[in-house]
Amino acid sequence: MKLGVVILAAGLGKRMRSRLPKVLHPLAGKPLLAHVLEAAETIDPTRIVVVHGHAGDQVRAALEGHSCTWVEQAEQRGTAHAVMQAMPALADLDRVLVLYGDVPLISPATLERLIAAADDSPLALLTAELPDPTGYGRILRDAEGRIERIVEERDADEQQRRIRESNMGFLVADRARLDDWLSRIDDDNAQGEYYLTDVTALAATDGVDVASARPDSLSEVSGVNDRVQLAALERAWQRQQAERLMRAGVTLRDPARFDLRGRLTAASDCTIDVNVVIEGEVEIAEGVHIGPNCVLRDCTIGANTEILANCVIEGARVGADAHIGPFARLRPGSELADATHVGNFVETKNTRLGAGSKANHLTYLGDATIGAGVNIGAGTITCNYDGATKSRTEIGDRAFIGSNSALVAPVSIGEGATIGAGSVITRAAPAEQLTLSRARQHSVNGWQRPQKQPKP
Amino acid sequence: MKLGVVILAAGLGKRMRSRLPKVLHPLAGKPLLAHVLEAAETIDPTRIVVVHGHAGDQVRAALEGHSCTWVEQAEQRGTAHAVMQAMPALADLDRVLVLYGDVPLISPATLERLIAAADDSPLALLTAELPDPTGYGRILRDAEGRIERIVEERDADEQQRRIRESNMGFLVADRARLDDWLSRIDDDNAQGEYYLTDVTALAATDGVDVASARPDSLSEVSGVNDRVQLAALERAWQRQQAERLMRAGVTLRDPARFDLRGRLTAASDCTIDVNVVIEGEVEIAEGVHIGPNCVLRDCTIGANTEILANCVIEGARVGADAHIGPFARLRPGSELADATHVGNFVETKNTRLGAGSKANHLTYLGDATIGAGVNIGAGTITCNYDGATKSRTEIGDRAFIGSNSALVAPVSIGEGATIGAGSVITRAAPAEQLTLSRARQHSVNGWQRPQKQPKP
Amino acid sequence: MKLGVVILAAGLGKRMRSRLPKVLHPLAGKPLLAHVLEAAETIDPTRIVVVHGHAGDQVRAALEGHSCTWVEQAEQRGTAHAVMQAMPALADLDRVLVLYGDVPLISPATLERLIAAADDSPLALLTAELPDPTGYGRILRDAEGRIERIVEERDADEQQRRIRESNMGFLVADRARLDDWLSRIDDDNAQGEYYLTDVTALAATDGVDVASARPDSLSEVSGVNDRVQLAALERAWQRQQAERLMRAGVTLRDPARFDLRGRLTAASDCTIDVNVVIEGEVEIAEGVHIGPNCVLRDCTIGANTEILANCVIEGARVGADAHIGPFARLRPGSELADATHVGNFVETKNTRLGAGSKANHLTYLGDATIGAGVNIGAGTITCNYDGATKSRTEIGDRAFIGSNSALVAPVSIGEGATIGAGSVITRAAPAEQLTLSRARQHSVNGWQRPQKQPKP
Repeated sequence: MKLGVVILAAGLGKRMRSRLPKVLHPLAGKPLLAHVLEAAETIDPTRIVVVHGHAGDQVRAALEGHSCTWVEQAEQRGTAHAVMQAMPALADLDRVLVLYGDVPLISPATLERLIAAADDSPLALLTAELPDPTGYGRILRDAEGRIERIVEERDADEQQRRIRESNMGFLVADRARLDDWLSRIDDDNAQGEYYLTDVTALAATDGVDVASARPDSLSEVSGVNDRVQLAALERAWQRQQAERLMRAGVTLRDPARFDLRGRLTAASDCTIDVNVVIEGEVEIAEGVHIGPNCVLRDCTIGANTEILANCVIEGARVGADAHIGPFARLRPGSELADATHVGNFVETKNTRLGAGSKANHLTYLGDATIGAGVNIGAGTITCNYDGATKSRTEIGDRAFIGSNSALVAPVSIGEGATIGAGSVITRAAPAEQLTLSRARQHSVNGWQRPQKQPKP
Repeated sequence: MKLGVVILAAGLGKRMRSRLPKVLHPLAGKPLLAHVLEAAETIDPTRIVVVHGHAGDQVRAALEGHSCTWVEQAEQRGTAHAVMQAMPALADLDRVLVLYGDVPLISPATLERLIAAADDSPLALLTAELPDPTGYGRILRDAEGRIERIVEERDADEQQRRIRESNMGFLVADRARLDDWLSRIDDDNAQGEYYLTDVTALAATDGVDVASARPDSLSEVSGVNDRVQLAALERAWQRQQAERLMRAGVTLRDPARFDLRGRLTAASDCTIDVNVVIEGEVEIAEGVHIGPNCVLRDCTIGANTEILANCVIEGARVGADAHIGPFARLRPGSELADATHVGNFVETKNTRLGAGSKANHLTYLGDATIGAGVNIGAGTITCNYDGATKSRTEIGDRAFIGSNSALVAPVSIGEGATIGAGSVITRAAPAEQLTLSRARQHSVNGWQRPQKQPKP
Repeated sequence: MKLGVVILAAGLGKRMRSRLPKVLHPLAGKPLLAHVLEAAETIDPTRIVVVHGHAGDQVRAALEGHSCTWVEQAEQRGTAHAVMQAMPALADLDRVLVLYGDVPLISPATLERLIAAADDSPLALLTAELPDPTGYGRILRDAEGRIERIVEERDADEQQRRIRESNMGFLVADRARLDDWLSRIDDDNAQGEYYLTDVTALAATDGVDVASARPDSLSEVSGVNDRVQLAALERAWQRQQAERLMRAGVTLRDPARFDLRGRLTAASDCTIDVNVVIEGEVEIAEGVHIGPNCVLRDCTIGANTEILANCVIEGARVGADAHIGPFARLRPGSELADATHVGNFVETKNTRLGAGSKANHLTYLGDATIGAGVNIGAGTITCNYDGATKSRTEIGDRAFIGSNSALVAPVSIGEGATIGAGSVITRAAPAEQLTLSRARQHSVNGWQRPQKQPKP
């Protein structure tokens, strides 16, 4: 049975009050539509067709990398009309699954159940018991529990309105039957639109025994119409991820204060303190501790390394047994070997720091290659930019850079070299020697410090 | 119909365990009483009378700027007694609305409804269905739904106690009738106090048909008696503000981790990450991103500017397309033009930074006027204070300040000037030239770095 | 009546997916078992016996300082078997209370009630009404409310399963009777284990009138089997602490974003902003304000001192009326006198700062003794480490350290001395004089700054 997926992604999303198409608003750092595409891809259909509306170029560009067929719905004439735009692209397939670009948390497991339900019927619907079903079509079942029909809110009587099982809009249909039903839907309603939900009435008319399946949670079938709903689904997703990580052996000090926007691969016995944000691809080895208020993006942290409070780490690789922070900022290209220390108010960028080396205070290390066992004094600056080009600083093993030194790149500091505090080093400093640049200290007797004038 | 508002603000608030009068405790950065005064002002009454208790000077001083009449209730003899203190100040008016200084979230919309209800009756009460009405007077209604009377908790039988509609204490009354009722209230009760709730019984005695209105939410009628309740109302208020902003087109990554203590004016498509605190008057233009853990107070941020994680910004104006942070601290008087970059561990104060200028690392810019296209190297310090006075640093367009330089104000750096790394600049640096102060670099052969002594 | 306490702490905790024994996982910074031990110690029993499983050395080491008897349960053969291991150590006592090392929030008040219930019976059980009692033994009571018996889940009929009052496993028993009951329990069940819950059936068989008591909240009887449950109990504990502090007169801007991992002693009218983490022993005097995102560990803060956003303070003593932060990092041994100012990107360690002294920007003060009224300029570094030993910097009262200076320890700066900006001070600077080391400033006419090359 060849399956095609149609994702309806043409909605205007006026209540978002945004220039960005609704399906491109990010949830957990990724467009809503990307979540739906990934769920669809997971079930491995023959083809995925996305029906987009205006700003098609923008939508396609944002979803680059997903293999799908793009179809435009030029006019917004309802959900059935949208699906109709996709049908020609599915003419060779057996079944069609309809998903929604603004209902991002639908799970592959639920889709599998819905598809399985369609094995027995040309039409299977996803239904759910809603606490407040207002606005949804209600599922009417007979004494045996079979779906008799769906009553739209506008046609429901008082008793029917009390039914909480509702039609969520997701469906799997026989492709040929769906073609036929779609051709029979009319736009004879207040909005003048073609509604996909009318398919169920037509199926009933045709005597079809409609099948159904249920989602695992209501967040799977919750849509995004405004940013309040977007935030609610963001939290639902984050809570899921937090629980998944905790069950896998990660301690989260407060799962309600954890944000994952990408993928976290965590070995056992890692601890993540409150308000940590993880973005991109982050990998942390066994026993890693991440302190409160840290942001980590696209980085790898070695075993038993401790990241203290308030660090921002991006595009960095940190070895094992390192101590980072608090207030450290590791930028892309930072490679910190095992047992390194990078302390407060220290920035590294495009810099290798050898095993056991330390830069504990108020330092900028940019475009530097630093050996093992090096001590970088407080206030050290690598002057890597001359206004035109970036140059590298090379520091040999065991070197000791005195505090408040400026290393003017390109420059090299030899192994075991010592740089005197406050130096400006512009030429190579030889190995094992003391190198410094320093003006003579003198005192001025009789000099008067300026005095605060009494206020007039 | 001339309306007077009485705000009861004399309560001692012992359960706050505070030296600060209860009504001055801040909610969302503003005294509780200020919230009530603003709600009262919104409905535009003829006069507002605040009844205060002890610490009247402190209360009046904290609410300076509100136009109201202050009346003291020297002794705490009950709510009716408190209203009585205010009545002489309202003798020329038609109606009286009673509010409470420790019930801060009452909304103008609810007050309008309560006042409208009083069009049909000399007494209108605000009532609400409480999940747990213990301690409140219950509303007894007849078969037609008209209020028959109010039964105080102490007088209620078992069945009456199960009634959840309760008297919230807010009322609108005909001024003359209220005068009469107040004069008839006695203090014949356990506490020896005059209770305003007794007005309803007197109205019933007089055959008055009591009207009523409902609040939109229970948080509107929730009072503050201790700091647990204060925190709960703070959160209710914050949740309201968060939803208002989201519906207006601002993305909040987590509405439960957003704090507004003042006013945020946000253009469309702004994104505010987790744990941002907004204080005072903050204005952000279209497309602004604010990273996690930022604090912004009294500032303006231009379109598409990105504020990265962990910034503290106060009294600053930032242009469009700027990049700020992470770990930037902008202090009052900072004016950053378009496309400026202010990076990690950089502080600016009373400083103008011209278009496209950059100060990316470990820098203090105080009392400086900096042109366009300037590059401020890492570790640059403007020495603006000599122990007595603050002086200014002037830096021309396109200047390049080498890293680790100290600019000793008053001093000027010419257009296109270059300052060598590690310099101390005490006199004007000419335009387009290289200026530096630097001691000769030399190495000391045979010098021995101190060695760690083995522990004895 | 001599009471012995048995704490069962031998569970493997496989669902924790951890190398750390379950009872050592921290809640609020302390092992789960430490919470139980402290509750037990509070009720002052004659003896406490902890039954541990594997990793006994690690468990004992982590709980060092608690006075208890350690007994090993070498094989995991059920809860009754575990208690049996402890009984020989309790042979001289009258009664036994059984607690669980992975049920950390049991309160002394509840234990007192359970013990009091046992005054009337040889067996008293802790029972609770569970929203979902699945898996628990249900309490069957007769018409007079006396416990008839306990039905285990596996033996319960449909009606019994609807009973929500359940056996929580905590019990107080007559020591001799318990010995007898334990000897009569068999392992004739699916797991082949000896279940402590079987005690109740034996007591019933013996005609014992079983007594019971209730906990104050369900979190008291909630156990930790995985990290999701651990996080839930962490939050329950934190919420309790937050409420306790608020009722005592501390304002918490958001009690859901406050973490206490140790003890906070707070005088009245302190305010703690969002996302503050308190660790170890922290004492804050009246009127202290702590800004958002601060971490405080083992420190003392004086009256009316303001800690601004994003500070990390550990092992420090701060006087009254000080201003700290934002972005300050006070490390162990920092002693800041009254009215001191420590500003952004400043680190102090093992340093005394005298009254009224200021270090406002980008500074590292390590191993320094600084007098009163001193001004430390931006970018000042104490060079306290020569690669082998740490040395001290002494700065006299009223000294003024120019910006970007390096003070190479050991070194002393006299009272009222002024250090010129950008100096490297290696010898004592005399009092009341200006001391500096500075190279001559000169300009290079005709010098060409490197130009960016057009990209090929």
